[in-house]
Amino acid sequence: MESVEKECGALGGLFQAIVNDMKSSYPVWEDFSAKATKLHSQLRTTILAAVAFLDAFQKVADMATNSRGATRDIGSALTRMCMRHRSIETKLRHFTNVLVEGLVTPLQDRIEEWKKTANQLDKDHAKEYKRSRQEIKRKSLDTVKLQKKARKELLGRGNLRPQLDSAMQDVSDLYLLMEETEKQAVRRALLEERGRYCTFINLLQPVVNVEIAMLGEITHLQAIVDDLTVLTEDPHKLPPASEQVIRDLKGSDYSWSYQTPPSSPSSTNSRKSSMC
Amino acid sequence: MESVEKECGALGGLFQAIVNDMKSSYPVWEDFSAKATKLHSQLRTTILAAVAFLDAFQKVADMATNSRGATRDIGSALTRMCMRHRSIETKLRHFTNVLVEGLVTPLQDRIEEWKKTANQLDKDHAKEYKRSRQEIKRKSLDTVKLQKKARKELLGRGNLRPQLDSAMQDVSDLYLLMEETEKQAVRRALLEERGRYCTFINLLQPVVNVEIAMLGEITHLQAIVDDLTVLTEDPHKLPPASEQVIRDLKGSDYSWSYQTPPSSPSSTNSRKSSMC
Repeated sequence: MESVEKECGALGGLFQAIVNDMKSSYPVWEDFSAKATKLHSQLRTTILAAVAFLDAFQKVADMATNSRGATRDIGSALTRMCMRHRSIETKLRHFTNVLVEGLVTPLQDRIEEWKKTANQLDKDHAKEYKRSRQEIKRKSLDTVKLQKKARKELLGRGNLRPQLDSAMQDVSDLYLLMEETEKQAVRRALLEERGRYCTFINLLQPVVNVEIAMLGEITHLQAIVDDLTVLTEDPHKLPPASEQVIRDLKGSDYSWSYQTPPSSPSSTNSRKSSMC
Repeated sequence: MESVEKECGALGGLFQAIVNDMKSSYPVWEDFSAKATKLHSQLRTTILAAVAFLDAFQKVADMATNSRGATRDIGSALTRMCMRHRSIETKLRHFTNVLVEGLVTPLQDRIEEWKKTANQLDKDHAKEYKRSRQEIKRKSLDTVKLQKKARKELLGRGNLRPQLDSAMQDVSDLYLLMEETEKQAVRRALLEERGRYCTFINLLQPVVNVEIAMLGEITHLQAIVDDLTVLTEDPHKLPPASEQVIRDLKGSDYSWSYQTPPSSPSSTNSRKSSMC
């Protein structure tokens, strides 16, 4: 009997420890939420900087595409690289939004719910525990009274024995009931605690999935880097297309003409040039 | 002869157009460099926010690992997710450094070199073009003089003919030489222009390679997400390990015990709870 009583106390203690852990966890969750919010706002300004960077990148690509020489292929590969990065940027923007809308905001709502639930669990358990203890105490007192009475009446008819046995059985049943109730309370607390992580992971997954979607862009980047490597492998040799620019000029109606500039601006440096 | 002259002018005009394109490109390159620098500084602050976020994430993971219930597996999966993100963060840090050290800073140096080279190309070409034109002019004048002389001496011995033919051949040769020289100048300008993109891409590649390596880290995230999905698929059911926590308590020396709290704090709400 004493062992069941101790076990009920231990179960109650375990329940309390779990609830206390949950209660002391809020600063950790709130810190996570605050740091995620800060990351979100940093990512937003980084995305703005990335957009401006990609605009500047596209201008370099356009310049290569539209130059007189044969850098059209290089320009188009750079444009593809720029477009891929715009696609990464779009996914990063999506990630940034999901981080707050899908994770931080719902998590903050949950934290409030968790506080209420843990308090309620604690309150309900305390009440139930007390009620059980009191009932057991009352029944135990009844038993003690019956035992005294039985001892006095031992010399009498002795018909208190079944009554005493039944009372003692009642106390024992109440203990077993309390043990089961305490186990259930511990299970509820464990479920609540574990459920928090399940909820958290449930909210986290879509965020990580958007992040994983960015991975898909790699293959494309690799292909473009490979193209650019081939296109620029010999910077000291003009590709056939550049020679074609010169040949095309011969057949054309000479839309170009050259006016020799006045020599004044370069006169100071003229001693340096000796190309004859 | 007139056609070769026109072609030389056209080649000179093409050369000038290429050099002018190069000269007008600096704002585009400088804008690229400025926007990359801004992106770099934004990324640096984002990395700080990411580090703080990952520290907070790790605390959530630790909490799951150390909780009384059976969330140790969840905690260890969250820790792995956190570690992967730290690895992504390290690569992002590397990317951020390479962006400036490997691309922006060397590019800025190159822009200064490019300015000098384009100016020198322009100056050398103008000088060479003028020199060729003057030489042709002088030779042409000689030819004209010889032609007049030859016309006057037509009635004489007529031995100026070979001299005149040779002078005219000289002019023609000079034109062909000038044409070749102009073609070479155009080729030099095209090589210089194309070389800029080759240099740019050469500087860009290591940056994109680090980026690709960073995205490569994301592959590992999928496995962790899959683990977390399995671990949390039924939040309303305690896993066997949680039941074990309760069973283990039975065999233990009952290090837990429960003190029923004073009823005062919950007394106001007591009418609501009716659990008996």
